[in-house]
Amino acid sequence: MDTKVNLTDELARFTEQWSPHVVGRLNDYKLVVVKVQGEFVWHTHGETDELFVVLRGRVTIQLRDRDVELAEGELFVVPRGVEHCPKAEREAHVLLIEPANTAQKGDAAQ
Amino acid sequence: MDTKVNLTDELARFTEQWSPHVVGRLNDYKLVVVKVQGEFVWHTHGETDELFVVLRGRVTIQLRDRDVELAEGELFVVPRGVEHCPKAEREAHVLLIEPANTAQKGDAAQ
Repeated sequence: MDTKVNLTDELARFTEQWSPHVVGRLNDYKLVVVKVQGEFVWHTHGETDELFVVLRGRVTIQLRDRDVELAEGELFVVPRGVEHCPKAEREAHVLLIEPANTAQKGDAAQ
Repeated sequence: MDTKVNLTDELARFTEQWSPHVVGRLNDYKLVVVKVQGEFVWHTHGETDELFVVLRGRVTIQLRDRDVELAEGELFVVPRGVEHCPKAEREAHVLLIEPANTAQKGDAAQ
């Protein structure tokens, strides 16, 4: 990829929720945009941290001991090995950055 | 780091330009916010790509063969080994992501 990415434009290309779209690469990491609403599944990435940047709306990263409430312009790194489950009451847009080989549901069934 | 980061709040903590502030880590990568205005120096990172996400304002990533004009909500990955020089006419705010050991000026004098 040697062109710039407009995140709003990329998000306008699809409507499916929980469907990650790769918009770029940073070394062996993928840059992903995703639309989320409702609750995902509890899962863990044993081998990597995972960066969530909220681009639009509000997202809650549920951890087993607390909730992390993210608004637009806020980010959170889920540490490797920490079980989590994202949720959003209304549709929200997220930029995810993680190694390219990271499975969306981690240790949970795909 | 196990707390969320509000990018606007982090940027409000300092006024210096071209002074990278680390706000988080993603595995062995650093998450950095920086205020830019004017022109930086031409340099190259021989070992890594470098991600620029414009949070506020407009930034031009000058490459030797073209300029990449970035507005708010746009990102660009400078490929490893590609000489570049960021500039901004007015103060702009950027999120940078790159390996933690990456030197700000790459191969140029520190």
